[in-house]
Amino acid sequence: MNAGGVVMGIGSLRNPVVGYYSEEEKKYRSIKLSGTFELLSLNGNISLKEGKSFAHLHVTLGDEEGRVFGGHLIRGDVFVAEVYIGELIGEPLERKDMGGNNLWLWEAER
Amino acid sequence: MNAGGVVMGIGSLRNPVVGYYSEEEKKYRSIKLSGTFELLSLNGNISLKEGKSFAHLHVTLGDEEGRVFGGHLIRGDVFVAEVYIGELIGEPLERKDMGGNNLWLWEAER
Amino acid sequence: MNAGGVVMGIGSLRNPVVGYYSEEEKKYRSIKLSGTFELLSLNGNISLKEGKSFAHLHVTLGDEEGRVFGGHLIRGDVFVAEVYIGELIGEPLERKDMGGNNLWLWEAER
Repeated sequence: MNAGGVVMGIGSLRNPVVGYYSEEEKKYRSIKLSGTFELLSLNGNISLKEGKSFAHLHVTLGDEEGRVFGGHLIRGDVFVAEVYIGELIGEPLERKDMGGNNLWLWEAER
Repeated sequence: MNAGGVVMGIGSLRNPVVGYYSEEEKKYRSIKLSGTFELLSLNGNISLKEGKSFAHLHVTLGDEEGRVFGGHLIRGDVFVAEVYIGELIGEPLERKDMGGNNLWLWEAER
Repeated sequence: MNAGGVVMGIGSLRNPVVGYYSEEEKKYRSIKLSGTFELLSLNGNISLKEGKSFAHLHVTLGDEEGRVFGGHLIRGDVFVAEVYIGELIGEPLERKDMGGNNLWLWEAER
């Protein structure tokens, strides 16, 4: 893979930890979920951050009652993962530090 | 872009408004959410409606506790958006008024 | 379609039934939802199972209050469906019985 990719998938995760970005605290808060969850949607992308491949992924997760939780994927043990990565052609997108707020974003003007 | 596209994305939205289509009322009801939400999934498409590009988008949104809300995207201020649009080749899909019910759909038989 | 596909979509489903895979029971539990729900995300794939095309799909569903439910899609009546299927090129992925646990998965080592 060169420039990066677009990621989609489904599956099942055990004990996932998701994040919510707090604008006041300027960082992600961790939300720990315990148990096994259906991975209902895995969406995001792969681009460059400090010269290395970096995946930015968001998830929705379903529990045994069909309730749904989610956030920015921090971690989770994979029970089942069926993931599609579409390769992006062209100049690589590169994440830049947006000024000490723990957000690394692409520059909008390219 | 010619014929239209398929849209996927993640990010963060402030004060999003989502819709739920009520079959009895034959229109979308608005659901206003306040605060900043992780945009967990943005899915939909771009096609033609009355000769112009029209985006039909559905979203799931996560709050600071990891709870998830969502619906048909009506509006929302973009805090962060990382969106992929896949161009569709071929004859453009065109939305038609389905008879005064505020639903503009593609014809199934093409 | 030869090898399979990647599926994405949005729409609206009536009376959907979703599943949650129980590791203890080694099978899917059914969760019946009644009413019409916005189909916020339809994600999954098409591959081979016992020589036939098989769709594995997960959904998130929004109700009239913007609350979200979801799981492995078992069934649901389509009110509106706007679905994209990306064809996968190459050798078909084939699902194998993982040993009597009602999970049919692709082999990770290919």
